[in-house]
Amino acid sequence: MITSTSNQRIKEIVQYQRKSRARNEAGIFIVEGMRMVREVPEEKLVKLYVTETFYKKHREELPKSNVQPEFVTPAVFSYLSDTKTPQGVLAVVRQNQYDEKIIRRAGHTHLMVLDNLQDPGNLGTIFRTAEAAGVTGILLSRDCVDIYNPKVIRSTMGAIFRMPFVYVADLPAAIGRLKEENIRVYAAHLDGKHAYDEENYCGGTAFLIGNEGNGLRQEIADCADTWIRIPMAGQAESLNAAVAASVLMFEVSRQRRKQE
Amino acid sequence: MITSTSNQRIKEIVQYQRKSRARNEAGIFIVEGMRMVREVPEEKLVKLYVTETFYKKHREELPKSNVQPEFVTPAVFSYLSDTKTPQGVLAVVRQNQYDEKIIRRAGHTHLMVLDNLQDPGNLGTIFRTAEAAGVTGILLSRDCVDIYNPKVIRSTMGAIFRMPFVYVADLPAAIGRLKEENIRVYAAHLDGKHAYDEENYCGGTAFLIGNEGNGLRQEIADCADTWIRIPMAGQAESLNAAVAASVLMFEVSRQRRKQE
Repeated sequence: MITSTSNQRIKEIVQYQRKSRARNEAGIFIVEGMRMVREVPEEKLVKLYVTETFYKKHREELPKSNVQPEFVTPAVFSYLSDTKTPQGVLAVVRQNQYDEKIIRRAGHTHLMVLDNLQDPGNLGTIFRTAEAAGVTGILLSRDCVDIYNPKVIRSTMGAIFRMPFVYVADLPAAIGRLKEENIRVYAAHLDGKHAYDEENYCGGTAFLIGNEGNGLRQEIADCADTWIRIPMAGQAESLNAAVAASVLMFEVSRQRRKQE
Repeated sequence: MITSTSNQRIKEIVQYQRKSRARNEAGIFIVEGMRMVREVPEEKLVKLYVTETFYKKHREELPKSNVQPEFVTPAVFSYLSDTKTPQGVLAVVRQNQYDEKIIRRAGHTHLMVLDNLQDPGNLGTIFRTAEAAGVTGILLSRDCVDIYNPKVIRSTMGAIFRMPFVYVADLPAAIGRLKEENIRVYAAHLDGKHAYDEENYCGGTAFLIGNEGNGLRQEIADCADTWIRIPMAGQAESLNAAVAASVLMFEVSRQRRKQE
């Protein structure tokens, strides 16, 4: 039983919760709560921390694993937790390393390319929706919010364990590689000439989605084959980034289902 | 210049920020930040509070109005503000009262009906997206989060001033009135028999959207003419409520544009 917040391992976990650099150097991230812990793939689980109360109540629901849970006091757990009302279970998980190749699948590649996305809730929601819409992978510019940020993880609702993704330093070059493989690249842009539903997404498709406040950077938008827009009524100036991404992803899903 | 946080009007505003009851009794709500303040309809503006620094820098951008801004010190403004980094401008605004009739429009009614929606960000995002998708109005069960909650207001991005909405005590009765007017009522439900894109939404259409964690209450779902589902790939169990609503709203928009 760990009873002190000055315990070295406790200090480490707090660093992993707060600092993307600490997480990435260790190749580790933290997930919290029963719902998320249950989705951790067995081979990725490094360590499990629980309170006694939680363990007594939920031991049967914990993932089967050789990793023995480590007990901490409620006070220590509160210190570890990123949430206001901690459940009493937290897992240390190994990060995934995906190869850029893995995010394409012959014939039905469907990619989301995120340029400087900053809001953790938006990024998590895009991952969650992407899985549901059959997206094959996500490319992120290196200045996007960290996918292993605790708020992002929560809003993925588990998709973080299943949706392949790659951070890239040079986004235009990565987009260039997509085009070489005949993946059609669409920029979601307020100045798009065609409505998004006038295009055919049954072949390899990638969408570029920009920053919440500023949209796509010009040099990224310029990499696209086609600019598309989501027609808007009223005085609405823009859509939330995750909403815009969702509308596009499900249009792909809709077209591909119709084609089957 | 108001210099003290114990000023009676300052205390009132803090109540309006924090308590839906105080807001609703006074028929008032608070909006913050230049972007939102600029969208307040002139006839709804009751009072404007600014810091001197803000006023000097942005006086030209403030809405034209007979309402003279009231100055407060930066310390008082921080106390008033619901945000971590206040801009220094805040408006007291009269609430809108919409009649249930106003949210229908002959021939192209498109309604969202929200049952016990709890997340402020989701509600705000649904309002924002609804305006863009051409929704004609929103019905909310009385136990939904308050639309005038500061977090909801921020995420509407101004749609709160333009999207008609009505809170109803008896949601099944309100849905019954829609059906009497031949508005087709669809429940977005994980057990829906038809995919959402297999229905025709060119006539009067209303969607029932349920709570984030629990979905639609059975007695509300039972009021629908048709249950529809959004087909999902992978192991995704559900979509975020605002995302599900957005996909449905833009499917209506897409079908109606095609028909034109």
